[in-house]
Amino acid sequence: MILLKKRLQKVRKAIKLSKAQAMLVTSVHNVRYLSGFTGSECWLLITEKENIFFGDFRYRLQAQKELGSIFKMVLIEGNVFSLLKSVLNQRKIHSVNFEAKHITYEQYYNLKTALGEKIRLCASKDIIEQLRMIKSQEELNYIRKAVSITRKSLRQLKPWIKPGVSEFFLKNKLDEMLKTNGASGPAFDTIVASGPNAAMPHARTTMRKIGKNDPVIIDVGADYKGYKSDLTRTFFSGKITQYVRHYKLLATAQDRAIKLIRPQGEIQKIDQIAREVLNNAGLGQYFGHALGHGVGLEVHEKPYISGKSKQRFIAGMVFTVEPGVYIPDSGGIRIEDMVLVTRKGYEVL
Amino acid sequence: MILLKKRLQKVRKAIKLSKAQAMLVTSVHNVRYLSGFTGSECWLLITEKENIFFGDFRYRLQAQKELGSIFKMVLIEGNVFSLLKSVLNQRKIHSVNFEAKHITYEQYYNLKTALGEKIRLCASKDIIEQLRMIKSQEELNYIRKAVSITRKSLRQLKPWIKPGVSEFFLKNKLDEMLKTNGASGPAFDTIVASGPNAAMPHARTTMRKIGKNDPVIIDVGADYKGYKSDLTRTFFSGKITQYVRHYKLLATAQDRAIKLIRPQGEIQKIDQIAREVLNNAGLGQYFGHALGHGVGLEVHEKPYISGKSKQRFIAGMVFTVEPGVYIPDSGGIRIEDMVLVTRKGYEVL
Repeated sequence: MILLKKRLQKVRKAIKLSKAQAMLVTSVHNVRYLSGFTGSECWLLITEKENIFFGDFRYRLQAQKELGSIFKMVLIEGNVFSLLKSVLNQRKIHSVNFEAKHITYEQYYNLKTALGEKIRLCASKDIIEQLRMIKSQEELNYIRKAVSITRKSLRQLKPWIKPGVSEFFLKNKLDEMLKTNGASGPAFDTIVASGPNAAMPHARTTMRKIGKNDPVIIDVGADYKGYKSDLTRTFFSGKITQYVRHYKLLATAQDRAIKLIRPQGEIQKIDQIAREVLNNAGLGQYFGHALGHGVGLEVHEKPYISGKSKQRFIAGMVFTVEPGVYIPDSGGIRIEDMVLVTRKGYEVL
Repeated sequence: MILLKKRLQKVRKAIKLSKAQAMLVTSVHNVRYLSGFTGSECWLLITEKENIFFGDFRYRLQAQKELGSIFKMVLIEGNVFSLLKSVLNQRKIHSVNFEAKHITYEQYYNLKTALGEKIRLCASKDIIEQLRMIKSQEELNYIRKAVSITRKSLRQLKPWIKPGVSEFFLKNKLDEMLKTNGASGPAFDTIVASGPNAAMPHARTTMRKIGKNDPVIIDVGADYKGYKSDLTRTFFSGKITQYVRHYKLLATAQDRAIKLIRPQGEIQKIDQIAREVLNNAGLGQYFGHALGHGVGLEVHEKPYISGKSKQRFIAGMVFTVEPGVYIPDSGGIRIEDMVLVTRKGYEVL
């Protein structure tokens, strides 16, 4: 509860800075972050003095269980936009932030139409995402646990990876292990991609059987109390001669990038250094995505680790560092680990 | 391919009717429906003569595999909105529909800013969803398969449902059975809710152990080639005296509703009749959701079976009929089946 109060306090400060009187929170992850409510489709309205939760009949009991007394629950019956209008009018609120990324154009249009001219809607961006970027001790504990469950499950899976078994069999096996090891489930749809399938950075798991000398990319994460992990391992089912060079290069690229991580360091630099290693080896063209992304309540969140980032590292950030090489029709490999920015430097989770 | 061409033809007709020259398709399900592409984050632009697919590097190989020659692929490098502008300008297109439900306010704002004054953006609603509502023979086959996998898995699960096992154990077991029986996975997060948890219409599975004489609500579906099923069964772990009456009432409500289904029949009527049965028994207040929803590429899609619906049934519609009674702190039960509107009446799937 103290944690939630602190977060809400920070949001109020941001609302005040933006010159609005309230904020409508529509992102399911942001709702969870501020209220502890783990369901979906419910919204929060944060005013100067109140925390108001909007949920319909289906979520009433769950909300009563999960929400503390600092939240006032308003049951949605009928049109949520008219309801919002009357709640705002009662409180004489004339300007409200909304989350531009987490509302559809249609919702925006309906909201605007319902609120009319007298209540100003202000598009806000990343107010809560910025807060979520810096993890608390409790959040770090959950993330660490999600990582350790994933690592343990991958170790347990290793003896099963051999020619003849299907990608799909391995995925099911791994998902089962995640759950047995304490995850509430996979953090996202687990990817097992072998041979030519491994050349697709976002491949999905197929019934393909692992062949001899195939690379097998496994991209997997666990969900532990809402917090995620995201790791990639490349296994080989036999001889790996043609991939040894790539693998070593990726390890070097990852290592050089990670060593640059420290508070105040520029984020773009570590993407650039990893890319440089691959460019120098003539493989830069096969590394088409950014070096990494933040991980927390979402598998992909801030900070984004790209060559275009203007941000600097701050202690408490957690993100992936995942250089990859994908050669069409041939195969691909990727290494992905999660890193925490500490006060003095970094820690690989 | 013929099926896709027919669908695209219908979309073109709708675009013409709406007086726009092209349509931007951003819903992942609508993209799949029109192109066969099973990945995410890619968009389509349907112009008078061309079908253009926008995808970034990560989806290139997958798109090449899945898209037929009727699609032209444009690789997204840099800003997708500026790219769209230049594609539209090259083709002298001055008005584009966009899917108001499937674009965030932020994307809309960026798109509008990039396109400038000379290209008119028109919010469109449900153009493709309307087409998706009527299932083709092939789609029906997939849905039937998804239903039969789910029914088979529920039958296999039955002997496992007994006091002492946890909701979570049952969920894992059931998910495994779905996969073993041929599903690519569950259609949504399978719900197993027992005892007081069963009173939450959207409960999530917990570690709670099934008690004696508990109702156990299982809400589950399978995904088969992208098409979903959605069924709910209520089991009892022992004596069921207090629920027998509710169960019988729900069965009556469902039965009376289903019997009214036929082409041209009013959708709202069947919600009303089911509600009437429960109202007459003094339980109407515990049935807080609409009677059902369409099922197809999405678990919840058109048509929505509500008392407010203005639509009529059309042959080829597939939807759930799911009356439920949820008594706070006590327990809830629900019956959910899927029904197809046939030329002459209905078929329970």
